[in-house]
Amino acid sequence: SDSYSLLILPGDGIGPEVMVEVVKIIDWFQTHRGMSFEVTQDLVGGAAYDEHGSPCADETLEKALSVDAVLLGAVGGPQYDSLDFSVKPERGLLRLRKELDLFANLRPAQCFDALADFSSLKREVVAGLDILIVRELTSGVYFGEPRGIHADDNNPDNEGGRVGVNTQRYTSGEIRRVARSAFDLAGQRSGRVCSMEKANVMESGILWREEVQWVHDNEYPDIELSHMYADNGAMQLVRNPRQFDVIVTDNLFGDILSDAAAMLTGSLGMLPSASLGAKMENGRPRAMYEPVHGSAPDIAGQGKANPIACILSFAMALRYSFDRGDAAADLERAVERVLADGVRTADLMGPDGGTPVSTAEMGDRIVAAL
Amino acid sequence: SDSYSLLILPGDGIGPEVMVEVVKIIDWFQTHRGMSFEVTQDLVGGAAYDEHGSPCADETLEKALSVDAVLLGAVGGPQYDSLDFSVKPERGLLRLRKELDLFANLRPAQCFDALADFSSLKREVVAGLDILIVRELTSGVYFGEPRGIHADDNNPDNEGGRVGVNTQRYTSGEIRRVARSAFDLAGQRSGRVCSMEKANVMESGILWREEVQWVHDNEYPDIELSHMYADNGAMQLVRNPRQFDVIVTDNLFGDILSDAAAMLTGSLGMLPSASLGAKMENGRPRAMYEPVHGSAPDIAGQGKANPIACILSFAMALRYSFDRGDAAADLERAVERVLADGVRTADLMGPDGGTPVSTAEMGDRIVAAL
Ligand SMILES: CC(C)[C@H](C(=O)O)[C@@H](O)C(=O)O
Ligand SMILES: CC(C)[C@H](C(=O)O)[C@@H](O)C(=O)O
Repeated sequence: SDSYSLLILPGDGIGPEVMVEVVKIIDWFQTHRGMSFEVTQDLVGGAAYDEHGSPCADETLEKALSVDAVLLGAVGGPQYDSLDFSVKPERGLLRLRKELDLFANLRPAQCFDALADFSSLKREVVAGLDILIVRELTSGVYFGEPRGIHADDNNPDNEGGRVGVNTQRYTSGEIRRVARSAFDLAGQRSGRVCSMEKANVMESGILWREEVQWVHDNEYPDIELSHMYADNGAMQLVRNPRQFDVIVTDNLFGDILSDAAAMLTGSLGMLPSASLGAKMENGRPRAMYEPVHGSAPDIAGQGKANPIACILSFAMALRYSFDRGDAAADLERAVERVLADGVRTADLMGPDGGTPVSTAEMGDRIVAAL
Repeated sequence: SDSYSLLILPGDGIGPEVMVEVVKIIDWFQTHRGMSFEVTQDLVGGAAYDEHGSPCADETLEKALSVDAVLLGAVGGPQYDSLDFSVKPERGLLRLRKELDLFANLRPAQCFDALADFSSLKREVVAGLDILIVRELTSGVYFGEPRGIHADDNNPDNEGGRVGVNTQRYTSGEIRRVARSAFDLAGQRSGRVCSMEKANVMESGILWREEVQWVHDNEYPDIELSHMYADNGAMQLVRNPRQFDVIVTDNLFGDILSDAAAMLTGSLGMLPSASLGAKMENGRPRAMYEPVHGSAPDIAGQGKANPIACILSFAMALRYSFDRGDAAADLERAVERVLADGVRTADLMGPDGGTPVSTAEMGDRIVAAL
């Protein structure tokens, strides 16, 4: 059907203002493409804590479980820094990821031609860069038990008397399913996957390597698979990122490596992400889409934010949730055209000049280009 | 006294050939500076496994515990890839770190003027870069228990039926002592420390942040301390590394972030490291020095390796173990002079031409410059 249900969670900081621009795009597709979106909005993160005392209320989670896709802005802000761990804005995000079982986090790191000079890396190292990091998102040290801070009273050598514990834990099944996502995606691209772990020091890394290799050998023998230690991966991303196509890695390494990769492109305000889970009864995957950038509280409410990352996250929703790769491509081309015309939010104003625009004007220009 | 005992562990790959050049330097200081080094050599890593069936024999460990300082080349090679985890070359290195209790790993990331164009980053982003990463080296997920790969038979949902576990575990005392190292070092530099963790998702990160702050407030109030999430740290290192002076972080984050930082400089073949522990009876710290680069098996035995990282590791030994900052500075200046003269091993041959030399010639040139 051409009818899609969408839960919009603008969140904190610049989240609400970039989401306003996405709603313009959604409206355009409704009016001009005969698509019909049933949109609900709700709170998440600090905004939800302020209202409900919880960064993701049970009702919000239920809504998220009932829709085709969730679109999230950003969470967090300095006013929440002193909150207890269990109710920090981030916990709302982590709850959604876990309860929707969104195990595959797709983070493209793409260098936009018009912005190649924004990178701190040399143009010849990053021009044309287009890699996809597939990060495991529902397990590992983010969720492993036991965890916590305890008294360590029986240990006279421990000055301070406390101990902090987290557990890195992966099952073979958790590794196999995210590996399949990576191989499937690689099949639609260059056909190369590099898996990253620390199998030289962590047994969970050995399991990771073995299971990824097993899926490859048994199910995707035609994809090219290589393995790399995550520290070397960080080095190679800096040295020559274009050697990679799809990278698959665990939750924590993925957090760090994907942020480094995003920054390489010089296009942080441009980068979307998709978090996908198992197929629902209607055949669509559970899914949440969000920009890679954070809530940027320092510029919130000033019309300075770049809405493109959030708009391109909606493009990913069109592609992965709604099977409308055609519409997604139209939207991505509209963004490229606006950039090529020199239209620039504050974060994109640089050596090449350009026409400075506000968050809202950027949204309008993209609508006009559609 | 001016007499120092040194255990040299050349290890695998290019380790032995770069160590030959360090021995030339040691000889020079003996002959011309009236210093006296009592040097013992032994095996470590794959070389030790080949001889003893263990990557660090008990006798080797005993020697390491009895000397003033250990100088290590590099460990590892493809012929050891299929060995059992417990006897892999890396385990030799980890055993030495743990048994000598070398909790503070100092990794300078310095961009050498003559080599600034080698970086994949723009010259204006990295020129003059000089940061020091202090990595905790004896705890965290590298050593935490429980660990291992187990059958997960009672879990019908776990395709593959296995589970891999590692434990991130830090005591307050472990955090405080490495924080003190970082603050002490910052006091000799710009007086700024940035501590990195994932306190937003890991309780061990909360403990890390609180204990670093405690040491600051109680013992180093004049040092400027900031905190950053490790994923943002990776981004900021790529975006603008010169914003940092001293970075202190845990074992695993330190592994990844210091490799990324090293690669930023474009000078990987130049970067030394020091791993320091508690003071021994003679007042010197337990210490091991090693280049940041690995064993580079692909170029081993061809006279192509750059011995400078290992030579500068010996300079760190002069400074931190032997309290001979003067001699260390002389050696560092000699290296700079040779580079300024355009003398280049294969890894340093680049856009600016230069005089290509072998590993041995580079060593000879540095001796000549002393
Ligand atoms: C906000 C935080 C909990 C989150 C994470 O660590 O996963 C963020 O850094 C991300 O990468 O989406
Ligand atoms: C060789 C390996 C065990 C080691 C580590 O992970 O610590 C290395 O990467 C390093 O950084 O010294």
